[in-house]
Amino acid sequence: MTTQPTETNVFERRESEARSYCRGFKTTFTSASGSEMTDESGQTYIDFLAGCSSLNYGHNDPDMKAALIEHLTNDGIAHGLDLHTNTKKDFIEAFERHILEPRGMDHKLMFVGPTGANAVEAAMKIARKVTGRTNVISFTNGFHGVTLGALAATGNSYHRGGAGIELNGVTRMPYDGYMGEGTDTADILETMLEDKSSGMDAPAAIIVEPVQGEGGLNAARPEWLRRVASLAKKHGALLIVDDIQAGCGRTGDFFGFEEAGLKPDLVTMAKSVSGFGLPMGLVLLKPEHDIMGPAEHNGTFRGNTHAFVTARVAIEKFWADDAFAKDIARRADIVEKGLSALAAMIPGAYLKGRGMMRGVDVGSGELAAAICAKAFENGLVIETSGPEDEVVKVLAPLTTPDETLGKGLAIVLDAARDIVEPGQKIAAE
Amino acid sequence: MTTQPTETNVFERRESEARSYCRGFKTTFTSASGSEMTDESGQTYIDFLAGCSSLNYGHNDPDMKAALIEHLTNDGIAHGLDLHTNTKKDFIEAFERHILEPRGMDHKLMFVGPTGANAVEAAMKIARKVTGRTNVISFTNGFHGVTLGALAATGNSYHRGGAGIELNGVTRMPYDGYMGEGTDTADILETMLEDKSSGMDAPAAIIVEPVQGEGGLNAARPEWLRRVASLAKKHGALLIVDDIQAGCGRTGDFFGFEEAGLKPDLVTMAKSVSGFGLPMGLVLLKPEHDIMGPAEHNGTFRGNTHAFVTARVAIEKFWADDAFAKDIARRADIVEKGLSALAAMIPGAYLKGRGMMRGVDVGSGELAAAICAKAFENGLVIETSGPEDEVVKVLAPLTTPDETLGKGLAIVLDAARDIVEPGQKIAAE
Amino acid sequence: MTTQPTETNVFERRESEARSYCRGFKTTFTSASGSEMTDESGQTYIDFLAGCSSLNYGHNDPDMKAALIEHLTNDGIAHGLDLHTNTKKDFIEAFERHILEPRGMDHKLMFVGPTGANAVEAAMKIARKVTGRTNVISFTNGFHGVTLGALAATGNSYHRGGAGIELNGVTRMPYDGYMGEGTDTADILETMLEDKSSGMDAPAAIIVEPVQGEGGLNAARPEWLRRVASLAKKHGALLIVDDIQAGCGRTGDFFGFEEAGLKPDLVTMAKSVSGFGLPMGLVLLKPEHDIMGPAEHNGTFRGNTHAFVTARVAIEKFWADDAFAKDIARRADIVEKGLSALAAMIPGAYLKGRGMMRGVDVGSGELAAAICAKAFENGLVIETSGPEDEVVKVLAPLTTPDETLGKGLAIVLDAARDIVEPGQKIAAE
Amino acid sequence: MTTQPTETNVFERRESEARSYCRGFKTTFTSASGSEMTDESGQTYIDFLAGCSSLNYGHNDPDMKAALIEHLTNDGIAHGLDLHTNTKKDFIEAFERHILEPRGMDHKLMFVGPTGANAVEAAMKIARKVTGRTNVISFTNGFHGVTLGALAATGNSYHRGGAGIELNGVTRMPYDGYMGEGTDTADILETMLEDKSSGMDAPAAIIVEPVQGEGGLNAARPEWLRRVASLAKKHGALLIVDDIQAGCGRTGDFFGFEEAGLKPDLVTMAKSVSGFGLPMGLVLLKPEHDIMGPAEHNGTFRGNTHAFVTARVAIEKFWADDAFAKDIARRADIVEKGLSALAAMIPGAYLKGRGMMRGVDVGSGELAAAICAKAFENGLVIETSGPEDEVVKVLAPLTTPDETLGKGLAIVLDAARDIVEPGQKIAAE
Repeated sequence: MTTQPTETNVFERRESEARSYCRGFKTTFTSASGSEMTDESGQTYIDFLAGCSSLNYGHNDPDMKAALIEHLTNDGIAHGLDLHTNTKKDFIEAFERHILEPRGMDHKLMFVGPTGANAVEAAMKIARKVTGRTNVISFTNGFHGVTLGALAATGNSYHRGGAGIELNGVTRMPYDGYMGEGTDTADILETMLEDKSSGMDAPAAIIVEPVQGEGGLNAARPEWLRRVASLAKKHGALLIVDDIQAGCGRTGDFFGFEEAGLKPDLVTMAKSVSGFGLPMGLVLLKPEHDIMGPAEHNGTFRGNTHAFVTARVAIEKFWADDAFAKDIARRADIVEKGLSALAAMIPGAYLKGRGMMRGVDVGSGELAAAICAKAFENGLVIETSGPEDEVVKVLAPLTTPDETLGKGLAIVLDAARDIVEPGQKIAAE
Repeated sequence: MTTQPTETNVFERRESEARSYCRGFKTTFTSASGSEMTDESGQTYIDFLAGCSSLNYGHNDPDMKAALIEHLTNDGIAHGLDLHTNTKKDFIEAFERHILEPRGMDHKLMFVGPTGANAVEAAMKIARKVTGRTNVISFTNGFHGVTLGALAATGNSYHRGGAGIELNGVTRMPYDGYMGEGTDTADILETMLEDKSSGMDAPAAIIVEPVQGEGGLNAARPEWLRRVASLAKKHGALLIVDDIQAGCGRTGDFFGFEEAGLKPDLVTMAKSVSGFGLPMGLVLLKPEHDIMGPAEHNGTFRGNTHAFVTARVAIEKFWADDAFAKDIARRADIVEKGLSALAAMIPGAYLKGRGMMRGVDVGSGELAAAICAKAFENGLVIETSGPEDEVVKVLAPLTTPDETLGKGLAIVLDAARDIVEPGQKIAAE
Repeated sequence: MTTQPTETNVFERRESEARSYCRGFKTTFTSASGSEMTDESGQTYIDFLAGCSSLNYGHNDPDMKAALIEHLTNDGIAHGLDLHTNTKKDFIEAFERHILEPRGMDHKLMFVGPTGANAVEAAMKIARKVTGRTNVISFTNGFHGVTLGALAATGNSYHRGGAGIELNGVTRMPYDGYMGEGTDTADILETMLEDKSSGMDAPAAIIVEPVQGEGGLNAARPEWLRRVASLAKKHGALLIVDDIQAGCGRTGDFFGFEEAGLKPDLVTMAKSVSGFGLPMGLVLLKPEHDIMGPAEHNGTFRGNTHAFVTARVAIEKFWADDAFAKDIARRADIVEKGLSALAAMIPGAYLKGRGMMRGVDVGSGELAAAICAKAFENGLVIETSGPEDEVVKVLAPLTTPDETLGKGLAIVLDAARDIVEPGQKIAAE
Repeated sequence: MTTQPTETNVFERRESEARSYCRGFKTTFTSASGSEMTDESGQTYIDFLAGCSSLNYGHNDPDMKAALIEHLTNDGIAHGLDLHTNTKKDFIEAFERHILEPRGMDHKLMFVGPTGANAVEAAMKIARKVTGRTNVISFTNGFHGVTLGALAATGNSYHRGGAGIELNGVTRMPYDGYMGEGTDTADILETMLEDKSSGMDAPAAIIVEPVQGEGGLNAARPEWLRRVASLAKKHGALLIVDDIQAGCGRTGDFFGFEEAGLKPDLVTMAKSVSGFGLPMGLVLLKPEHDIMGPAEHNGTFRGNTHAFVTARVAIEKFWADDAFAKDIARRADIVEKGLSALAAMIPGAYLKGRGMMRGVDVGSGELAAAICAKAFENGLVIETSGPEDEVVKVLAPLTTPDETLGKGLAIVLDAARDIVEPGQKIAAE
């Protein structure tokens, strides 16, 4: 399970210090299937990280894999700029039939550079162009990417510090629950929006995550989301739902905003949208906002055709009926039970998140890191989240068999028990 | 060759108006191999666009394809965040052995979000962080991407206008040749850099393309590039070579800056770096500039492992010896001859570019568009470039067989002849 | 009292539409003395505007006037750049002796361009240079001037809109009382400052007015001001007290922040600091922040020597002992009583402000304007304030004789009575 | 002539280190008349600095002084916000009659905060609002003030560095002569304006000084100014002439742009506009650009009524006929002869500037400083200018008697001779 120095040598020698996840999981992975990864020594790991929610359908889903091999075998287009390809057509049609139409969404699809950050950049540009305003309202602990436009909307000071330049054009408001239970933070937003001397410039957009993944698995209440949406509408701002991490079934429905019943003007997608972990970025936009001219927002890899192949399979396989949503709901219960037990084990700890996007705030980044490190020793890939990395986060593939889910949760609980007990004091401040 | 309405219906119905290339090539492509693409009617096209230089090794190279199918068959990692994988290791080693070491480059590799824009964003952030300065000098007609940080460095007003917000932190200087033959534009750069009251803030970086692909195939003279490099060094700025379009053999050497003998602080790569057209972005940086902390510049798709598979094959197959470079040189001559003939045919037209990155300024965007449209009718995919789209651009795969190259060029010449003659007046103003 | 068209002709013909106060007081003033102004028809007016608190010692104070005539007669320096002059020396010594030393302030004086906005610009630059940070925190409804740097800190959307460009570098927090009685807005400030992922960049400064003059006479509680000061200190930000309108005795003490016992890093002054209404701007700064190099912040009129003459007299005459402070306190009571009566007269109206900086929120800009217009007809110059101009504002000279003060207040009450009664419904929404 | 420590003590103790001119002229001035200043020891100095062109009519002009004393004696308004006063009316009428009408200018007057920087800020805001664009083009070595908006347009890196924040919204172009004799820098401006991919955003305004005072007395050729004006017009940009230092007769005509025959959209004025050295700022704007709403650009001291009193006298006394212009022309010849002699004395030195705004580039800041210091010892106040302070600058009052002018020039020549000779090597690099 430990890595031989000779193996990682090249990483240390030639890979930038900006590398990160590899530091917590010191091995070299070689293959993966479903909910499990295997390293070069043959050791297998249950994956509770799932590419940070990019692998909601697990690794190497057999149907997507077969379709992609077939595509390759037939010399299907690999790279298509934004030319029309049959593959892209099939994806759009599947997305229209199984995702948009059943939800009454008339949104169009804008294929953007294949990253979430690029989707956010595009959405912010569209909102600014549509409204002729520049100010975008984002929320405390929001994470939207690290390219300059998206980074301005991101709250994390470590990432912001990397810019080396000012991050302009964004006003920050407190997310739901930010000021504790007594305060509805939408009051602050409303008061500032309605006061002509508040200093808050009229917003082009409000960008919000239904659940803040990187920010610590903060789940907004549906009524708060609806109020934010309604304030956006009232004040002429477009509502951008950043569903990059919370979408594609992660919170139970296909979209993270379905529970609240929102009808966003713009939706940003990436991560699991290709189904297979392949790079793909997507903006859904209401037709009336489809005002970018040809190539006005362009990019070489808008047509990652391999991603369209697997994305189509993902939609058809998992979202043609409600069976998968029921699976997710059942598995979410399993996760909730397991994590509730974890929370109960640690004084002051509490459960966070929603659906299959859950975690436990254990009170300190040190403790969370220790639990995750111990779990990795025992064959589980699991990460932390939150401003101080104080949340042990479970982002298992949504397809994880119940038994595997149970096994993984048991590893977490054991790890926590090992660290907390016997008689150990855990400083959780 | 024409597209049935029913087929493209879904694109018109559901794809954003921001789509672009598909407007010029009105068909639906289904497969591609080497230098040729096939559409759903079975019609084949010679490809002189090559994914805007993302397919330097052609479509579905058989060795890369085989390696990728094998990887898939074996459940190799598809998405690896930035975890260590054997696939990534193999790529880095190949890149070190065949690219970096032979060129005496001690650069490290920073895997960034899989787009060129993301590589540019990362490079600009690094330069700003390293120097503690914010100003980045870029050049007229430069194209570096459309996310907010990169877009500030991009010259094209159409793309800039999409921002909807000010683009700050960049000073624009005239590129080589911009003021005509009598003026060495590096004089202006030098004068402003050396004058404490010029209003040009001390630069964090100078970012330059060896050949400006989108800007109209402007090729900088080696001595101009060297002078820019030397001014950067003298004034404490990092030299960023944006080799996204000019790199990976496009201009004859692996890097577009080799001819000039530059040793850039930072190199941005994307497009053809994966070899197969798969999304991949890369920053090469001198070890002393490797100061980004873990995940300070992060992103979900930094580990597009499929791209590592094909990128390794590309390096090993094409860059282990100098055979490929010789092929490129020979083909570049063929292209030069063909395009010289084109230039000779049109009053005032002239050849531009370098290596296999060539074009002809035909004097107006209308004429260039007409030539390309006619060529497409005759089975050639070819595009325009330049501030007014006035350049007919040839970006054929570097692997295009000489005969196919000749055929494609003949189509261009015929198209031009059809349009220009007989006796037709071409207004080329 | 009405203006003949022929008289104002030249204003309409040649003065920019940006002119403002003259629109509410349609006459041409010719002379003024103490608390009264006279127009060209010989009509006199009690002045409850006092140059927006620039004439705290009244018009043409006889001692200042005598000193200035003497200075002129002797060919004293009128314009001295920032050369040493005896006049400047005398002013600094008086300010040191009567203002700084008794208050235990070791601040230095930075003479800036002779406007409040310039003082704010200088203070913001100093704070940014001292801390190496860019973010300045300002408050809802704050007004700090309309040059680009200061305007970023100003809340009023009408003024902000005049910029025609983005206003960057400032984060807005709710002022004391902004969210109503139940919420201590300093909690929001504290939470965001202490959360590394709040998206609030580490502040260079917090800029705050003890009482917001333009913002509607919002008076911060001393304990709130102290908490803001303490948060600034804790988080490495400089505390800038903008005392331009609230200073020079307006709230009862010389400085508006004395009641709260603050020790600001930087204090901005203008308006009444010259005593005579002459342009003068001043930044007080703790010696450790005196890091601007010679002329780094420069300006032609930093040495308005006439202003130094009158400013010295003002300090010596009014602040050498506590007699004047007692006068202010007594007059403040008179104003409070008068305005309480006004507030009682209008449903929902309430008293605002502190010291001699008081007003009544009458619920709507229309009503406030009507009251002021009627009062002007009856010989009183009085203005409105607040985001909707909904506050009838009394900024009488601090030297106004009690009897005159009473007369002026009676005019306001009569005006309100005329408008409200008989039986009139006042819609105050 | 030297200052006793006890005298300057208070300046060192209590005045900010940002003080500047006083460092070069170490004495304390007490009075001044015409072209001469007197210090506390009774020593007199000829003034070749003239408040940096703020005292074009000399110190304490007897007619202005008499008018101001009379105004004071009569309790004339000192501070009038922007209320109508008879004093302001008289000034506007005089300005209309003697300045605007004879020159066929239909411009309106916008009274702004009483500094040049404020006039520049207002002009930039107006241009941005009128055009809906943000980019302002300014020139190398331009100086427009140090508040944030104006500072962005200022070239000097020392001043720019004081901002502590990025300076956005301005593009810098080379001023006339910047690239030496062979290059017409307007070519660069034209090429970039006409190229849609130059990266130069469509400009809201071009701001230009007819002669760059702080930038080293660079005088633009009339044909270059006309070409810039014509490019502004062609590209929809407003032409702002910053006449703050070059205006009010300094270059021979009332406006610095008259020689070139420009009709600027906006003219910024300050410095000598009050005639007496009192703070006053003014923007002249064509009626069609008078689109700022009431108080949209506001400020407390827009109505420095004392300045209106003296400004009116200045206009009526000096600009009612052409006598003064003839005096200036004659004196300009005297200055030119004297400075030509200075230039001839120093290898490589050369004459700069125009009218009574002249100087000699002596090749190094050290030499220029030495000459000025020596001249001060001999009773002359004279300063340097330019990016390296390498220009000995003569800005004598335009009213300086010919004999005094000769005396002052003789002091400069003697000072230079003392330093250069005998046989001394002057390193002028």
